[in-house]
Amino acid sequence: MGFIHLYTGNGEGKSITAFGLALRAVGHGYKVIIVQFMKGRKDVGEYKIRRKLAPNYEIHQFGRKEFIDLKNPDSIDYVLAKRALEFAKRALKRKPRLLILDEINLAVSIGLIKLDDVLELLREIPKPTTVVLTGRNAPKELIERADLVTEMHEIKHPLKRGVQARRGIEY
Amino acid sequence: MGFIHLYTGNGEGKSITAFGLALRAVGHGYKVIIVQFMKGRKDVGEYKIRRKLAPNYEIHQFGRKEFIDLKNPDSIDYVLAKRALEFAKRALKRKPRLLILDEINLAVSIGLIKLDDVLELLREIPKPTTVVLTGRNAPKELIERADLVTEMHEIKHPLKRGVQARRGIEY
Repeated sequence: MGFIHLYTGNGEGKSITAFGLALRAVGHGYKVIIVQFMKGRKDVGEYKIRRKLAPNYEIHQFGRKEFIDLKNPDSIDYVLAKRALEFAKRALKRKPRLLILDEINLAVSIGLIKLDDVLELLREIPKPTTVVLTGRNAPKELIERADLVTEMHEIKHPLKRGVQARRGIEY
Repeated sequence: MGFIHLYTGNGEGKSITAFGLALRAVGHGYKVIIVQFMKGRKDVGEYKIRRKLAPNYEIHQFGRKEFIDLKNPDSIDYVLAKRALEFAKRALKRKPRLLILDEINLAVSIGLIKLDDVLELLREIPKPTTVVLTGRNAPKELIERADLVTEMHEIKHPLKRGVQARRGIEY
């Protein structure tokens, strides 16, 4: 049975840590598959790097370009999140070293996908694979299920004092 | 004046977040320079990836292959840490998008390098550059000086229950 890492909390660095693990695994020549929930922007560093790191680095986005309204998701958001989860299930069968389910914690917490469906996927992790779950508001069942849990705690953040998002840093 | 990010805390993900930022910045075609304090192992993913990401990704190790004795560093450890800091100062003049000073917080906290010398370097950050400081036990002066601070808080870690370090995950 494979491993589960979970990164949550109000601080910056949850998805970024997952990308750092991806860099490390690809460095060893391992396969990494990233599935992004609720994200669809292509002009982000983690998407643009895919050619340089091919074929071992794959990133698949299941979100719109626009930000999702977390309190009132659109029907397309439910469709896309369901597709992401189905894609992730099939991806596991390829036994990647890393399967990153980016923002899945938040997707579960706002009800885009069902906790039970995620728990079912987590029962199917092949031995060589580590599954990484990122996102705020991780449900306690996922925290209990994970082998490694780190909470990112924000001490300070420049965007809070009106600094604009920086290319290659915030995205 | 550039930015400073600081990642500290007892949890996993401090250096890994820095590597994630590196992946993101290189994805945009920016220059990234990583300077590792107290680390000298070449069989780690973040080192092995350097050819694939060249020339924009540089990683320079200033440590021995063996673990440093944090309570009783060897004289060579002081020499190497000083060299790392000098290298970092010169690297800043090249105005990389990211300059990652990996484990520098810990290096300062155990007295390998002087806090004042680090603060001096941090006064010289060119505008396009973000400097990333990682490591446990960050001195409060560095936390005050940083623009973004995230504390990685360990909730659980599999190595604590006797699991062996996994290639492409822990290193």
